[in-house]
Amino acid sequence: MPSTPIEVGGDQIREAVERLAPWAHKTPVLTSKTLDDRAGASVFLKCENFQRVGAFKFRGAMNAVLQLTDAQKVAGVVTHSSGNHGQALALAGKLLGVPVTIVMPHTAPAVKREATAGYGATIISCEPTLAAREAAVTAEVEAHGLTLVHPFNDWNVIAGQATVAWELFDQAGPLDVVIAPVGGGGLISGTALAARERSVRTRVIGVEPERADDARRSLASGRIESAGDPRTIADGLRTTLGDRPFAVISRHVDQIVTASEAEIINAARFVWERLKIVIEPSSAVVVAPLLNRTLGLDGGRVGVILSGGNVDLSPFFDALAAKWL
Amino acid sequence: MPSTPIEVGGDQIREAVERLAPWAHKTPVLTSKTLDDRAGASVFLKCENFQRVGAFKFRGAMNAVLQLTDAQKVAGVVTHSSGNHGQALALAGKLLGVPVTIVMPHTAPAVKREATAGYGATIISCEPTLAAREAAVTAEVEAHGLTLVHPFNDWNVIAGQATVAWELFDQAGPLDVVIAPVGGGGLISGTALAARERSVRTRVIGVEPERADDARRSLASGRIESAGDPRTIADGLRTTLGDRPFAVISRHVDQIVTASEAEIINAARFVWERLKIVIEPSSAVVVAPLLNRTLGLDGGRVGVILSGGNVDLSPFFDALAAKWL
Repeated sequence: MPSTPIEVGGDQIREAVERLAPWAHKTPVLTSKTLDDRAGASVFLKCENFQRVGAFKFRGAMNAVLQLTDAQKVAGVVTHSSGNHGQALALAGKLLGVPVTIVMPHTAPAVKREATAGYGATIISCEPTLAAREAAVTAEVEAHGLTLVHPFNDWNVIAGQATVAWELFDQAGPLDVVIAPVGGGGLISGTALAARERSVRTRVIGVEPERADDARRSLASGRIESAGDPRTIADGLRTTLGDRPFAVISRHVDQIVTASEAEIINAARFVWERLKIVIEPSSAVVVAPLLNRTLGLDGGRVGVILSGGNVDLSPFFDALAAKWL
Repeated sequence: MPSTPIEVGGDQIREAVERLAPWAHKTPVLTSKTLDDRAGASVFLKCENFQRVGAFKFRGAMNAVLQLTDAQKVAGVVTHSSGNHGQALALAGKLLGVPVTIVMPHTAPAVKREATAGYGATIISCEPTLAAREAAVTAEVEAHGLTLVHPFNDWNVIAGQATVAWELFDQAGPLDVVIAPVGGGGLISGTALAARERSVRTRVIGVEPERADDARRSLASGRIESAGDPRTIADGLRTTLGDRPFAVISRHVDQIVTASEAEIINAARFVWERLKIVIEPSSAVVVAPLLNRTLGLDGGRVGVILSGGNVDLSPFFDALAAKWL
């Protein structure tokens, strides 16, 4: 067991729920007979793809920024993320009048750069390596007194992400199992902490890409194993676990399973085609083991966290426009 | 004013609501701050893309089949539709043990043919002309005593489609305006009849593709004008109005507006990207005038019927698979 103390419990989650109420959407929970039939279970889909900025990340970022001191708010915040956390922090800063700086590799797609800049954040480019990103963040912290809001290795962020499962228990009632994707570990550890508080008997399962199975390996070895630089379509799940999420996962997550790239794409397609909602590949990982019936759900009540819906749709709509206009 | 008497009123809709309750989904109503900001109104999206078979059509088809006599049920039903009505009728027949025959042009995409056959319907191919389709249906009716369930020119079908807006009034509360797409006219006339019964003051607006503006022209001339064979991406809205829907529209629809192909594609993209739900182009037409603010909604409460979500996603997911597998 890792020795990092866990600093989020029921009180911190309850406070986060209250703190976020004026800001975050209480996202709907959808059900689908088609999915239930395929999964052999009653599935409750917590749709964080409908959350602000299109992903659960807004909860953690907002919960962190809301707890800054006035001096910290004036100085501003910084993070390195070309993805959903960057946009989430940018929106949180915009809503609260806090300056936001986002460090992005210069290789980040223009569409992500523009979306983040659209929320008024300052963007700093760096080389596309973890070392370069961390160095750029440290430079900002030291030169301008910015506060780092880490995407997942931060207790306030984790408490914010825990509000997803907390709401799900309110909306769906008793659950035998709750399932969330595993990247850096913020969402799965928030989910596990909420479950432990709300329903001790609920089994907590994390799902990660087969090609980025660092959480599974870390649980097996008892120490944080690197994800390396995995080539997976689930771009939100390429990260190595942080030590805080790892401490929570080691104690409170019952099982980590993996999904292959083909399974992830098939699961995404199933959800888009049959459930008519747009989810990103990093969300589809949690649907894959449902379709395969590999979890022994056995007719139970299963909560599933669909983490986000940010996908580049340009190829699809450009092709339609080329055909019809 | 057309002389066709209107045979659907509040009683028929109330009966349809009750008749469909065990079979059709009560689809959710979604709201979106992003959309409200763009539209300058409070928009309530009635999500029939989440309906069984992915479109409102299940309601009308099921309401019609449920009212057949036992002898009619044994003989079976027939229709000509390669689209949502065909699948809807096939599912209705499957659920009730009624044989279903669907006449389809031999040019219909294999995916639609397979989806319909997947519900156990018998498929008969014909030449891709309206005359050939009608002749094939008539031949089935005469040779085997099948009952035609017309996609829109049928009062039981119209009463079934009216349950969409009926539910919307229950779910969203008072509405200043309700908007639905116009193809053959089943959905818009059901919507208008429900609105007249539930809220006389609610303005009813139909939207059709600019390239298939037969309803607009028919209202102007006072008689049914042909849609011709319009080339529009909104494949569910290429049809000419039936005389029964036309009678309802003439009396109870306040306004018909149109959307260009570019507006339809932009509206679909907006909904997929920002609202994270999959709608088909025939649904996106109703969103186009909201984004353009051409309806004078002026901060009002607006009900919008998203009719369906059946889109061929193969190009998108095939491209993903080619890149990642």
